[in-house]
Amino acid sequence: MPASVQMGSGQLTIDRTFTVSVAGAHDDMVDRAIDRFKDQLTKQTAILLQKPVDPAHTTLTVRAEHGSQKVLKVGDDESYDLVVNASGAQLTAPNPLGVLHGLETFLQLVSVTPNGFAVPAVTIHDQPRFVWRGTLIDVGRHFIPIDVMKRNIDGMAAVKMNVLHWHIYDNEGFRVESKRFPKLTGEGSDGRFYTQQEIRDFIAYAHDRGVRIMPEFEMPGHSRSMYVGYPELASGPGPYKMEPGAPDAEMDPTREETYKFIDKFLEEMASLFPDQYVHIGGDEVGGKEWEANPKIQTFMREHGMKNKQDLQAYFNQRLQKIVSKHHKIMVGWDEVLHPDLPKTVVVQSWRGQESLASSARQGYRGMLSFGYYLDLMWPAARHYAVEPLSGEGATLNPDEKARILGGESCMWSEFVTPENIDSRIWPRNAAVAERLWSSATMQDPASMYARLNQVSWRLEFLGLTHRTSLRPALDRMSQGSDVAPLRTLADVVEPVKDYTRMENMKGPLDFRAPLNRLVDTARPESEQARNFRNAVQSYLSSNFKDQAAAAQIRTQLALWRDNDPRLRPLLERSFLMGELAPLSADLSSLGFAGLFALDYLEKGVPSPDSWRTQQLAAIDLAGAPRGDLLLMVAPPIRQLVEASGGKTSKP
Amino acid sequence: MPASVQMGSGQLTIDRTFTVSVAGAHDDMVDRAIDRFKDQLTKQTAILLQKPVDPAHTTLTVRAEHGSQKVLKVGDDESYDLVVNASGAQLTAPNPLGVLHGLETFLQLVSVTPNGFAVPAVTIHDQPRFVWRGTLIDVGRHFIPIDVMKRNIDGMAAVKMNVLHWHIYDNEGFRVESKRFPKLTGEGSDGRFYTQQEIRDFIAYAHDRGVRIMPEFEMPGHSRSMYVGYPELASGPGPYKMEPGAPDAEMDPTREETYKFIDKFLEEMASLFPDQYVHIGGDEVGGKEWEANPKIQTFMREHGMKNKQDLQAYFNQRLQKIVSKHHKIMVGWDEVLHPDLPKTVVVQSWRGQESLASSARQGYRGMLSFGYYLDLMWPAARHYAVEPLSGEGATLNPDEKARILGGESCMWSEFVTPENIDSRIWPRNAAVAERLWSSATMQDPASMYARLNQVSWRLEFLGLTHRTSLRPALDRMSQGSDVAPLRTLADVVEPVKDYTRMENMKGPLDFRAPLNRLVDTARPESEQARNFRNAVQSYLSSNFKDQAAAAQIRTQLALWRDNDPRLRPLLERSFLMGELAPLSADLSSLGFAGLFALDYLEKGVPSPDSWRTQQLAAIDLAGAPRGDLLLMVAPPIRQLVEASGGKTSKP
Repeated sequence: MPASVQMGSGQLTIDRTFTVSVAGAHDDMVDRAIDRFKDQLTKQTAILLQKPVDPAHTTLTVRAEHGSQKVLKVGDDESYDLVVNASGAQLTAPNPLGVLHGLETFLQLVSVTPNGFAVPAVTIHDQPRFVWRGTLIDVGRHFIPIDVMKRNIDGMAAVKMNVLHWHIYDNEGFRVESKRFPKLTGEGSDGRFYTQQEIRDFIAYAHDRGVRIMPEFEMPGHSRSMYVGYPELASGPGPYKMEPGAPDAEMDPTREETYKFIDKFLEEMASLFPDQYVHIGGDEVGGKEWEANPKIQTFMREHGMKNKQDLQAYFNQRLQKIVSKHHKIMVGWDEVLHPDLPKTVVVQSWRGQESLASSARQGYRGMLSFGYYLDLMWPAARHYAVEPLSGEGATLNPDEKARILGGESCMWSEFVTPENIDSRIWPRNAAVAERLWSSATMQDPASMYARLNQVSWRLEFLGLTHRTSLRPALDRMSQGSDVAPLRTLADVVEPVKDYTRMENMKGPLDFRAPLNRLVDTARPESEQARNFRNAVQSYLSSNFKDQAAAAQIRTQLALWRDNDPRLRPLLERSFLMGELAPLSADLSSLGFAGLFALDYLEKGVPSPDSWRTQQLAAIDLAGAPRGDLLLMVAPPIRQLVEASGGKTSKP
Repeated sequence: MPASVQMGSGQLTIDRTFTVSVAGAHDDMVDRAIDRFKDQLTKQTAILLQKPVDPAHTTLTVRAEHGSQKVLKVGDDESYDLVVNASGAQLTAPNPLGVLHGLETFLQLVSVTPNGFAVPAVTIHDQPRFVWRGTLIDVGRHFIPIDVMKRNIDGMAAVKMNVLHWHIYDNEGFRVESKRFPKLTGEGSDGRFYTQQEIRDFIAYAHDRGVRIMPEFEMPGHSRSMYVGYPELASGPGPYKMEPGAPDAEMDPTREETYKFIDKFLEEMASLFPDQYVHIGGDEVGGKEWEANPKIQTFMREHGMKNKQDLQAYFNQRLQKIVSKHHKIMVGWDEVLHPDLPKTVVVQSWRGQESLASSARQGYRGMLSFGYYLDLMWPAARHYAVEPLSGEGATLNPDEKARILGGESCMWSEFVTPENIDSRIWPRNAAVAERLWSSATMQDPASMYARLNQVSWRLEFLGLTHRTSLRPALDRMSQGSDVAPLRTLADVVEPVKDYTRMENMKGPLDFRAPLNRLVDTARPESEQARNFRNAVQSYLSSNFKDQAAAAQIRTQLALWRDNDPRLRPLLERSFLMGELAPLSADLSSLGFAGLFALDYLEKGVPSPDSWRTQQLAAIDLAGAPRGDLLLMVAPPIRQLVEASGGKTSKP
């Protein structure tokens, strides 16, 4: 939602004569953006734009005051003005970045009308609230190929995000080629990594779309993959292997050779990644290898260090000097915060607004990721409600507030593959993007969802697969049998929330295990369940008078009631689906219970207490997780059953 | 279906330890095929294969007797043997081509079982019945980008087709870069064409997958796009423009300059396209420009030519000499057949088995395309039933039969876009592929459909979008509103058949018009309608006792009955959907009629004659085309209503 929108009257028709021309000086970045814009417009509408264009006719005029810069900077002016009326449109911006954003806004405004495709007359002035609007993608735990990364950059650009935080290695795999230290990928990965040429190409791709690439070189923890090839860096005796369940390993901060390695490594990476910022991780250092290493213990005593925090602070100071030597600014997670660190360091908070506010008070710039963890499978509205400047953040003075740069959503990849990653990031990431771009006063989830639905299908025209990838995954499970009953179940379940799936595991997470269960493809937020919940709300709050809602509820309930007999034969044939049998049976039971409740409500006869008690107990069981999945329609059916008793107060 | 299949007992488990090794000499083509095979196996199963592989352990051993050739030849040995048992698998072939085919067969055999992914124990010996198994793709009328072409090559390779016939220009656009004659694309296209570098890369891509690329340079008709830049080649006064509805133009066969141009052009193209065969079109020469040109008429009189056929024969003889000079073999449509042409010419028959057999009797080699026109929107079974050696073909002697090389499906692109082309080609093309590969005794459509369903979902893992592209197209039409009711309608309609859509047009076909109506995305063959038809058949032939079929029928009918009220509000908001209103209303009526009929049948009470008469009249109206679409469930509902009278004989 732009900063300022004034609707006009009339509309600008979009047909094959639509043209774009650049006013003022030409800029390659803008020209390429216009080419992409036209391709995208063609995809969204299926209109093949006229070629060659008629030079006498211009529909959209684009002007940027300045040319593009070789490296994007934090705080670059991203504002733009877009004026559309029936005869044409003008897009002006101080920088090409604003042009990119304005073109995305224009695409969002293109809609189908009874008389053709059109953009409504409108005057928009727009700029972001925060300068740092990012997404972290973890490619360490599961490798994500560069083409999948690229389409996610397209998605980020479409929702005006401007930084990809590339968590480029972790314990489970080292994913960036180092020519100086080839054993990093040679022994610290399964052969799945990015070459430097791919990375340069990817950075140029992102730059063209107004997205900075900030790499994360995690130290001293979360870095076991480094020690497979270079065990001398670590604090334990080694050897280190790429195996599931191996304990965390930590860099040895007491040896000078460690800093020589880091210096050489970061020098190479600093020239590969042009962005001014380098993330050094710094989170979740367990310290067990440090404790077990007598030399490190001696070092700590000799330097008067009381605990692992002191040792990490020492490490970070040394690290910061190296980062600084290579003309970069250091970013780290909450744990890096220490009074001895210079105020240039940027703190990324996974801990929350209190931690973030505390660093701002101490003079550090920071950004929020707490509340934006996409891997926790929360609904978009829950992420949307997380505000960097709320809670402790609200108590900051203006100078301190100015230190809050923005935030980043995080896509940790324990259960992520090239096939399902889009569906884990999108469309929910668009809600985080709006939180970071738009006014803090935007708080209505229903209005957010209305926009989210619009953004979601448009993102698929960019090549994202968050909707369409469900079908192939279900086909794999059902092997070409009629997929409809499986889809009916898949549409109303969600993966368990937070860290439940990991907690449910018998052993350690095996990052090599195939991710081909329903939990791996089921959408983090079920649209069908949300629509059903809304219908039940409408029906109940209308005092059972909303007949359209009642009809919709009845159709859905009947579909669910009848689904189990259709699905069951499939479940028995495939080892990937056996775990779904109880969910499928319960969905049918829920359908039955809901239909009975609806019958009572429509007849105006209260349901018997004993029936209701029995049903509510069954519904509570149906709401329990099975196969790491939740049946999301249990709560609204519970509401129907409760309401059928005639005693429940209206919501 | 392979030539010979013997099932064994047991199965070979597929898990992350699965490996492939090459026995004997290594060949790059085979190595790359194995890499693709492993990627594909991972996509189909989501199993990340172990890296690095355990050298002591081999699951699948691959051996080709000979290395790959730089240029694929017609008649190359494509046979292979595949033996699978519980402990491993062996794939052997004389040539890498057989290895490619065997790997595709292996992928088809991988299936989900109650105990994991596995391939059943089996011994297969396989080779194709015909040496020429192709698909024609017309990129002249609508340009198809190279990435879309590539994924269709993947699809062809998966079903063991071995030649892409690239109809690379037509009246509406010239799509191949000529450095000698740059105005061919410069003025004869809308800027959408392939560079020579793209073409070379594409040919290598196809070669790697065992697919020859035969270009078609259509002359002397269907070539208006050539004359926009080079009007001197044509027989009319010009100028020629790229505009819809312009009349056909014809090359001037009477000027020596014409043959000089062709010589230079084909010399350039002969070095660009390594395949031994060049198609020169030759079909549908209207001859109106020839008639209107006094010089041409004089030329014909002077040379004793009686009609346009004689003039075209003269042209083809000249053309054939040029083709031959550049070491190529000429292929042309039926019309090129003329006693004066050398017997090396290959005839492609769009006219039928009679025409094909006639050329074989005259000593020409030939192939069939009649009956394989994918743009006619026929069901797969109808294509499957078309046999090159049936009809007149069956009366040929063995020598003549040997001249029938095979066949080609044809994807003419009047109504084709990069978005919908996959759904027009697939999965139906797999039925043509089986007709050309497998035994002529394979004739059972039900068995074909069982295999087709399996092939279809696997093709999507190759990147084809014949199933998933429906969703974005519906999203475009409904603009993010709940797409389910639109999908319900889309799932039971098919585009009108044959050339009805073109015949229904008020004016000439406008190849620039957006293809964004439901007819542009609705599948040529509705799976839902077929399944419903089969359920009705089961129910009727069980003497109304098949309760599972009855339940399935009832659920479907209720869905359709209730759909119109859900869909109607959408239809009014979008100019792309207004035309669907009568179809949507009729689908609801069909649902009502079917449910009433089912009630009568289940109660064992004959429906009243007057009701039935009324219903049947309404059903006939509902079966009529609207919006260039057919409601495919009208006929089976008609059967139900007829049966409800209690008089209809069982099918």
